[in-house]
Amino acid sequence: MSLLTANSHSLSEEELDEYSDGTVKLRNSNIELMDQDILYHLALGSESHDLQEMFGDVKFVCMGGTPKRMENFAHFIMDEIGYKLPAGTQLQDISAYSYRYSMYKVGPVLSVSHGMGTPSVSILMHEMIKLMYHAKCIDPIFIRIGTCGGIGVEGGTVIITEDALDGQLRNSHEFTILGETIHRPAKLDKKLARELKSLASADDPYDTIIGKTLCTNDFYEGQGRLDGAFCEFTETDKMNYLEKLRDNGVVNIEMESTIFAALTHHAGIKAAVVCVALLNRLNGDQVNAPKEVMHEWQQRPQILVSRYIRKVLAQHGQLKSLFGHQGSIKSPRRFKLVQQESQAHD
Amino acid sequence: MSLLTANSHSLSEEELDEYSDGTVKLRNSNIELMDQDILYHLALGSESHDLQEMFGDVKFVCMGGTPKRMENFAHFIMDEIGYKLPAGTQLQDISAYSYRYSMYKVGPVLSVSHGMGTPSVSILMHEMIKLMYHAKCIDPIFIRIGTCGGIGVEGGTVIITEDALDGQLRNSHEFTILGETIHRPAKLDKKLARELKSLASADDPYDTIIGKTLCTNDFYEGQGRLDGAFCEFTETDKMNYLEKLRDNGVVNIEMESTIFAALTHHAGIKAAVVCVALLNRLNGDQVNAPKEVMHEWQQRPQILVSRYIRKVLAQHGQLKSLFGHQGSIKSPRRFKLVQQESQAHD
Repeated sequence: MSLLTANSHSLSEEELDEYSDGTVKLRNSNIELMDQDILYHLALGSESHDLQEMFGDVKFVCMGGTPKRMENFAHFIMDEIGYKLPAGTQLQDISAYSYRYSMYKVGPVLSVSHGMGTPSVSILMHEMIKLMYHAKCIDPIFIRIGTCGGIGVEGGTVIITEDALDGQLRNSHEFTILGETIHRPAKLDKKLARELKSLASADDPYDTIIGKTLCTNDFYEGQGRLDGAFCEFTETDKMNYLEKLRDNGVVNIEMESTIFAALTHHAGIKAAVVCVALLNRLNGDQVNAPKEVMHEWQQRPQILVSRYIRKVLAQHGQLKSLFGHQGSIKSPRRFKLVQQESQAHD
Repeated sequence: MSLLTANSHSLSEEELDEYSDGTVKLRNSNIELMDQDILYHLALGSESHDLQEMFGDVKFVCMGGTPKRMENFAHFIMDEIGYKLPAGTQLQDISAYSYRYSMYKVGPVLSVSHGMGTPSVSILMHEMIKLMYHAKCIDPIFIRIGTCGGIGVEGGTVIITEDALDGQLRNSHEFTILGETIHRPAKLDKKLARELKSLASADDPYDTIIGKTLCTNDFYEGQGRLDGAFCEFTETDKMNYLEKLRDNGVVNIEMESTIFAALTHHAGIKAAVVCVALLNRLNGDQVNAPKEVMHEWQQRPQILVSRYIRKVLAQHGQLKSLFGHQGSIKSPRRFKLVQQESQAHD
């Protein structure tokens, strides 16, 4: 077991984590020796699928909790980067047959759901990192697009995570491997966080901030809520705890950031977490914003991430101009008329 | 914070956990004082829905990982208990608009997906326990129907959990509440486990056993797999670990049992975990059984749970005879002909 400790000392040396061409280097020599590598929870395999052909061009891996949000993001980013599907095609959930996660591909962008909580994210991260390796993706960037509770920030605020903290406010994620407990640093890319922050616009009718994020293993007791099935603390205990969090620089609480940060860092992959606050926990526990408002709020991290992706693609001359680009639709008005005519003749 | 410790000492007193009429007593006095209780992740609310009218008759809450498996179970149990939907209706995912969990109701049976890992199950358990309380359900029984890796047992074996153990082989689940770490016993109902075991048939072409279950926070490193994105231990380390588990009476590994056991026990709800092994981990890491075989294996825990539900319903005179009951179909042959005729005339 001394191996575990020995290896984790070499984390900071980025050259260990990727090959000189920027492709993801796998810190597991067993994979190369395997006859095939089945990525069960993605419904993909290294010998059943040509993963390099399918995913070799991926530059951005965007993840979020629900299949629905990530399907929406796929359609949103398709418009934003002017990506055009061939006539007669539509986006398909690549991992539909896993019945676990959903995955959509829009050119250089993957949009993947990760479920709720660190174990669910852990499984996905192992398979996504192996996918990057098999596909020989060059310098992929991972971004989690989430929702969270704010601490002292209003609902609708966009929060970029500076450091991900566990329940004991440690900037690491605890792993139990072969019965032994180890910690890996939950580090995110500070430069990427600053770059994302710089893309917030003064015209945005909401704040975009950087701060520390608390990652918990539960939504109710684990986040100091009074409205779970159990509550064995008082409102005063709760408020003291939330204020302690605020005093430690914590601006939001969610349930996935430490594992996301720890595994991307361990793999030498640049990563960021961008969430929108659904409420200010200093004011209450239940989320009361109307559905339409919540829907608009959830688009805000997507808009920020889209600005970043557009910027990077533009820098590489890979962004098609949106202006004048209408896809297959020459005239929206006539398109609508044809649809109506067609429906009348069924 | 002394409240936490004080309350957890009184766990064993079952009278604390339910009212004399068998309805679920909530260990959280805040709920009664709330204007409304929104069960966000179920897309239900105490004031928006008549939860007693909708769910008051629920006796069995069956949970499993994926929406697909739980939709299948809902249809399976409908046939098994002879439950008939009104003409022109079909099962509906009650929680579809949460985009988180799926929930189907078949008379006294709820079939709910819980996602992967203990945090995802934790959120669901809080809301399901509150749902039982709001609906005034009497003596509901919770059963997790899952998949797992076997330790020294062959793929296809059905395993009923005797005790759920965490990564350190403790029969408890660790919670971090307001920054404080506490443990709650991960106890399941031994009588229910024995009753389920007694329903295994000598004619079943597979074994049904009772044993200890290890609950981990990851599928790869956390379960000693060599095929994750990272592996910092040797095959010998792995085998020593798996053999140590076996020596401690562990027969299977999954990712949900401790939280499921701890929260049902804390709520005074009788619960059981029934899983099918997808492989024997002493022989390897990758699941290689063909899809059809895996599909048949996953039905085995469902069959056992169905026998139990049928038995309980029969004891209460609530089981309609299946024999001679064809639902709306008088003649399957003529039904098929009508369908074909109808399709030809579209």
